[in-house]
Amino acid sequence: MNFQITGTYTDLYQLAMGQAYYRDGSHKMPATFDYFFRKLPFHNGYVVFAGLADVLDMLESLRFTSEDIDYLGKQGFNADYLEMLRNFRFRGTIHAPREGDVIFPAAPVLRVEGTMLEVQLVETLILNTLNFQSLIATKAARIRMVAGDSVLSDFGLRRAQGFGAITASRAAVIGGFDSTSNVYAAEKYGLKAEGTMAHSFIQLYGDELQAFRKFAEARPKNSVFLVDTYNTLQSGVPNAIKVAKEMEERGERLKAIRLDSGDLSFLAQRARAMLDKAGLEYVKIAASNQLDEFVVRSLRQQNAPIDIFGVGTNLITGHPDGALDGVYKLVEADGKPRIKVSENIQKVTLPGNKQVHRLLNEDGSFFGVDALSLSAEGVPTHIINPHEAHKTMQCAGINSEPLLKLVMKNGEAINRIDSIAEIKNYASQRLSMLPPEYKRFENPHVYKVGISEGIKAMRDELLKKHAF
Amino acid sequence: MNFQITGTYTDLYQLAMGQAYYRDGSHKMPATFDYFFRKLPFHNGYVVFAGLADVLDMLESLRFTSEDIDYLGKQGFNADYLEMLRNFRFRGTIHAPREGDVIFPAAPVLRVEGTMLEVQLVETLILNTLNFQSLIATKAARIRMVAGDSVLSDFGLRRAQGFGAITASRAAVIGGFDSTSNVYAAEKYGLKAEGTMAHSFIQLYGDELQAFRKFAEARPKNSVFLVDTYNTLQSGVPNAIKVAKEMEERGERLKAIRLDSGDLSFLAQRARAMLDKAGLEYVKIAASNQLDEFVVRSLRQQNAPIDIFGVGTNLITGHPDGALDGVYKLVEADGKPRIKVSENIQKVTLPGNKQVHRLLNEDGSFFGVDALSLSAEGVPTHIINPHEAHKTMQCAGINSEPLLKLVMKNGEAINRIDSIAEIKNYASQRLSMLPPEYKRFENPHVYKVGISEGIKAMRDELLKKHAF
Repeated sequence: MNFQITGTYTDLYQLAMGQAYYRDGSHKMPATFDYFFRKLPFHNGYVVFAGLADVLDMLESLRFTSEDIDYLGKQGFNADYLEMLRNFRFRGTIHAPREGDVIFPAAPVLRVEGTMLEVQLVETLILNTLNFQSLIATKAARIRMVAGDSVLSDFGLRRAQGFGAITASRAAVIGGFDSTSNVYAAEKYGLKAEGTMAHSFIQLYGDELQAFRKFAEARPKNSVFLVDTYNTLQSGVPNAIKVAKEMEERGERLKAIRLDSGDLSFLAQRARAMLDKAGLEYVKIAASNQLDEFVVRSLRQQNAPIDIFGVGTNLITGHPDGALDGVYKLVEADGKPRIKVSENIQKVTLPGNKQVHRLLNEDGSFFGVDALSLSAEGVPTHIINPHEAHKTMQCAGINSEPLLKLVMKNGEAINRIDSIAEIKNYASQRLSMLPPEYKRFENPHVYKVGISEGIKAMRDELLKKHAF
Repeated sequence: MNFQITGTYTDLYQLAMGQAYYRDGSHKMPATFDYFFRKLPFHNGYVVFAGLADVLDMLESLRFTSEDIDYLGKQGFNADYLEMLRNFRFRGTIHAPREGDVIFPAAPVLRVEGTMLEVQLVETLILNTLNFQSLIATKAARIRMVAGDSVLSDFGLRRAQGFGAITASRAAVIGGFDSTSNVYAAEKYGLKAEGTMAHSFIQLYGDELQAFRKFAEARPKNSVFLVDTYNTLQSGVPNAIKVAKEMEERGERLKAIRLDSGDLSFLAQRARAMLDKAGLEYVKIAASNQLDEFVVRSLRQQNAPIDIFGVGTNLITGHPDGALDGVYKLVEADGKPRIKVSENIQKVTLPGNKQVHRLLNEDGSFFGVDALSLSAEGVPTHIINPHEAHKTMQCAGINSEPLLKLVMKNGEAINRIDSIAEIKNYASQRLSMLPPEYKRFENPHVYKVGISEGIKAMRDELLKKHAF
């Protein structure tokens, strides 16, 4: 297992701008970027924040290799600039929520501070990692929400977007999946690996009964029989029952059967009845085939006795939304706030070094509004709708917690949480603090953000300065 | 740059089945799998076959590391099986079209022959690679088709599905893109890297004019100015013109300006007029912002004077289809044909070791039907619709070429074509042989497959054997 990206995992323009910064010395200027997203995927009410530990890992080890430097030399970059890049280390400071937290549009998720060159060069890496892992963790959380206590296993590797599979399996577990078929990701991240059996196994032996016997002999503790190669109810399930009873005689237990085609609700009910009649109440039923949150919800509403769902394509590619639209914007440089203007007011950025205060109800659940203020301001006494200034809200007396915490200082990760189990538990805990109206699939309630007087004044002044 | 997957880049069940094969000696049984897909993505009329060179590369170098073996030991695999895996090498033989060819549903694309264990273990790797790269190459080909001779550049890295970006950029170029912003992929695959400038660059200097000057000084031969940070027509374009004229005095030429928001057609026309009036006819106009094949087509239909399109999310994630549904099915084992039965006749597999004959019109263009026969049969004299046996077609007198050629023999790649330029040219050449009715976006003509009498007889006999 050997998987290491380098400094060239970026857009060419980052390196081009870096050369310009280096040329006039502004590469050393202090600068702050915010990572945030604008649009919720899946018409969902929230996003599960994932990918942070990978980002910190990659930033700590980020280097330009000699091979990279030679390559960039041939691309026309200046020799002095490349010599500097040869010794490049990311020494920036990052504030972020804990990985697994629940996040919402418009509020900063990462605040990245450092020299202009270093914070610019890592933009693409940060976006690529957080956008994708947060997308998949969110998709997984939607499926978990309707799956009750069923086992959810990621079966997506074969349909994943190439090597995207590696971090997608990680994110799926953070969002609520129990396991993955992807051995590489399981090994890399300490995920639970699970698997069943393919049609080819049955086809090889030709005889389904013999194939089940062979598999049970090879995997006595971990056998799942695929029962739809020829005919699920007339061949697959009866043969599975026969071999399960043989296993019982050896003191073994068949773990599960798997349905992979046909009407899963009907077949699961019939198969369950057949298994139970044979005294195999402990044999579980797994189902797969084009599952997503809507199919899983429907199967559970029909009381289909399915214990394990194997979800592939729709999970691993975040179907139907292939990307979270996260962006990374300069909000301060050389100690001065910066803004990006746009004809679309929604796209005007919020300047300044900011903190996000998550307001809390008295029972500890999320209030429904995140309050943004300048870091120097502390918790604001009242907040203003960023786009409709007549809408304000008092914050005094409302509990809150700061969302952005120090996770990297001068290039070194702080208070790292690499255990996927801990991140997954945190996601589950934070999701439980989000009221149900934000979690429904159909027109979920909109979680709001408000900005402090300090941010508003800063933004209005910069807007005036850049007005045409 | 260091990017190496290992034998664990697979589904757990492949390794589990492998242990069962190993236990009874069937791991050495000769077997043949077909890779093929069933459903065209994007309602398109064809797929561009991509990913082959990467597959061959990975198969040649595929190993289980000591770390992998230790990990698998902890997962409960047997020690003797793992000792065998420690020395695992893929020694199989593969037939495939040349990478870049145009392929269609139902016909085999890869024929993979070897021992049961080796061809089973690599299933996931083959599916993961070919499904994704073919999806993206196809998306790219759609965009190229409507982009005329405009430059197309992949800007997708930040919104890509994690490390999927690496091979996606490769596939985009095969499908017809000219370049990528992804430096890592460009370095790895020898793609052309291109880039412009971000809003943060303008924001850092605060003054747009100064920012353009700084960039021109740093990149005198390769400057593209982003003109929409404050106001495109009132600030961005006039400032770009001013700096372009200054560059002329130094004997330099501004390469392009980039539009990234607003009405791209309107802004391009106004910007073009302003540039031309200033004698800057040579300065090109680049455009980006949520482009896809439909927006590019619309912009060209409006005669928007855009020379360079930067396409991001919709290209790199294959929006709206996140995956090609390619599968890998056992068609022969131990010298005997194998079948997978299904209640859905479309999902019954075609058994046997097969060849695909691409029928050709007299002018050399594609006939509209691929003829499948058993490898031993040669070109069939007539073919039969696989699902409606009363529909037959004479092939006698029709020119044809065998599509599946030897690309790997006993684990060694043969006649390798690694040059992306060659693969890209081949794709373009093969697409030019596909009649236009198969290339339109709206209800494209259906490219058909027919099967030989030999395949039909074999399938019918196996179906009868497994009937219930």
